Amino acid sequence: MRSELDKIIFDIHPPYKAAMDKARRYQETLAKPPGSLGRLEELSVQLAGITGKAHNNIEKKHLLVFAADNGVTEEGVSSAPQSVTLKQAVNLTKEKTGAAVLAAHFGSDITVCDVGINGDTKCSDVIDRKIAYGTKNIAKGPAMTKEQALKAILTGAELAENTDADIIGVGEMGIGNTTTASAVLSVLLDADPEKVTGRGGGITDSAFEKKKEVIKRAIEINKPDKNDVIDVLSKVGGFDIAAMCGAFLGAAASERPVVIDGFISVVAALCAAKLCPDVSNYLIASHASFEIGYALAIKELGISPMLYLDMRLGEGSGCPLAFQIVDAACAVMNKMTTFEGAGINDDYLEEIRQGDKFTP
Amino acid sequence: MRSELDKIIFDIHPPYKAAMDKARRYQETLAKPPGSLGRLEELSVQLAGITGKAHNNIEKKHLLVFAADNGVTEEGVSSAPQSVTLKQAVNLTKEKTGAAVLAAHFGSDITVCDVGINGDTKCSDVIDRKIAYGTKNIAKGPAMTKEQALKAILTGAELAENTDADIIGVGEMGIGNTTTASAVLSVLLDADPEKVTGRGGGITDSAFEKKKEVIKRAIEINKPDKNDVIDVLSKVGGFDIAAMCGAFLGAAASERPVVIDGFISVVAALCAAKLCPDVSNYLIASHASFEIGYALAIKELGISPMLYLDMRLGEGSGCPLAFQIVDAACAVMNKMTTFEGAGINDDYLEEIRQGDKFTP
Repeated sequence: MRSELDKIIFDIHPPYKAAMDKARRYQETLAKPPGSLGRLEELSVQLAGITGKAHNNIEKKHLLVFAADNGVTEEGVSSAPQSVTLKQAVNLTKEKTGAAVLAAHFGSDITVCDVGINGDTKCSDVIDRKIAYGTKNIAKGPAMTKEQALKAILTGAELAENTDADIIGVGEMGIGNTTTASAVLSVLLDADPEKVTGRGGGITDSAFEKKKEVIKRAIEINKPDKNDVIDVLSKVGGFDIAAMCGAFLGAAASERPVVIDGFISVVAALCAAKLCPDVSNYLIASHASFEIGYALAIKELGISPMLYLDMRLGEGSGCPLAFQIVDAACAVMNKMTTFEGAGINDDYLEEIRQGDKFTP
Repeated sequence: MRSELDKIIFDIHPPYKAAMDKARRYQETLAKPPGSLGRLEELSVQLAGITGKAHNNIEKKHLLVFAADNGVTEEGVSSAPQSVTLKQAVNLTKEKTGAAVLAAHFGSDITVCDVGINGDTKCSDVIDRKIAYGTKNIAKGPAMTKEQALKAILTGAELAENTDADIIGVGEMGIGNTTTASAVLSVLLDADPEKVTGRGGGITDSAFEKKKEVIKRAIEINKPDKNDVIDVLSKVGGFDIAAMCGAFLGAAASERPVVIDGFISVVAALCAAKLCPDVSNYLIASHASFEIGYALAIKELGISPMLYLDMRLGEGSGCPLAFQIVDAACAVMNKMTTFEGAGINDDYLEEIRQGDKFTP
């Protein structure tokens, strides 16, 4: 299976520089002070680098949600019972949850994939790719085998590659996964668990202390190798995070921009970027999660969020909102008039063209 | 005219507390960790306070753009020539400019109102409420008379009140208006012009120094009274800012949420809030403008932006993006299932209900 993963990583290439230059030059002809649309301009250039075309559209939007359970919940690290994973996975397919409502409202498709729910969904709308009925408790030993981690990654990659969307979002549903995500991040960044661990869905002070202690113990017992992402994911991660990591890789390998949701999602994106640094060119951050580890992970990726909404729901709920911003970037690029079309005079144009006169 | 303004201010009332409480209680029943949708939840509560109904929709969105010229451009404080105001005002009605493209793309109506363009638009789509052919040069004396300032405010208020929208955005087009907005803000906050002045559309280092010097001179010569908003607007403001101030008041007086765009817009909103503090309950910040004065003004209003896109175009370009976020807040409130509907068990619900156990 490692060779299959290597093939996906091999397919991921640096951005199309010529298309990016073309997009950048076209932006300069649009009737606005240079750079005044900020991130919207940058997004249009990024999309050009991903698709190889200066002008892009994101008509088909697709949110991929990976659902799995985490054995570590037996330590009492979560506020919600494990059964919520299964129920909300099913509810996600019925436009009932936060992310599902937002996806439907903004015209995004949604796929919910069971990569390890601890129970049978009995719902044909949830794609069944169950690897096991939940992971093992990371506080006592590895979450899964390396083969299972690879299988989860390949599952995520396959779903992303087979999606016919222009843009993909990556979310999750898995009670206990802020604990596993914090553990993975702590290892990858060599950071104290205290620095990367938040309260997740909302837990009491005593449960919060226990959560941090559990993460420390999981790392001590499992001794994951920070330079080996598969080792880290298999020892202290989860099926959801591993599959999401694969989805980021698959999106990049198939030349699609891919949107990060919140904390779990950014940790999975960081795993993907550690496996293949070129992935970072395909990533679009959506909202700044309220979880404290988010800021560290996004900084490590060298990108920054666009939305500050104090959200910490997960499920991919930030992705449909970010799709709207990317959509706006495409609209500006494709529909705004040029200086010439605006009838704005040549002296000003000449000043604009002498770009070095301006300090943005 | 002052009595007409007083009548509008009299119509602005504090939020409907009972509706806000109802909205807050309903949010607590939705199937998500309490508070996990952050600002989306807060927006639904704010809308309830504005309309008096717990559930709201923003089907009709309307962007109001006020266009006017500023005599201070003769000091060489802007990169673009004054003629751009007229051309872009017309282009705004033809879906050609940045804000017009975004408004059309996201289904928002747009009204462009000439309150003082230095020229005749010869375009019937631009509403003609011209007060004068541009203001006078604030570096040499007052921009306008107090009567003109009142007329501009009442014009903006009337347009907002007569709009049949569920949400209103307030933007502008006026070469030189980052200079007047900085001057107004400097006076209202009693802050050094150095602290509130940015580069606007993009100017050279020498023009930037001149801009700050011009603002200092305008304040010294005109001696505006910081406790009298009409005095400040008439002496160092512009027809656009005054009309925008009126639009914020009119939106609040007619119980509509109103979205702030960037720097000029937030300064106008601050003027409205100084005239009537209750206005702040009706305001929704969109994006954090790149202009340095924005952060000071928004902090003074006690609100914070949702989008970080490094935009500094003006025209109301941030409003259609913010409308999408408010729309998302309504969708969550109206379409998400409750814990009961999600089939999530009673023990968890009981824990959630014991809200004091949680530190968000």
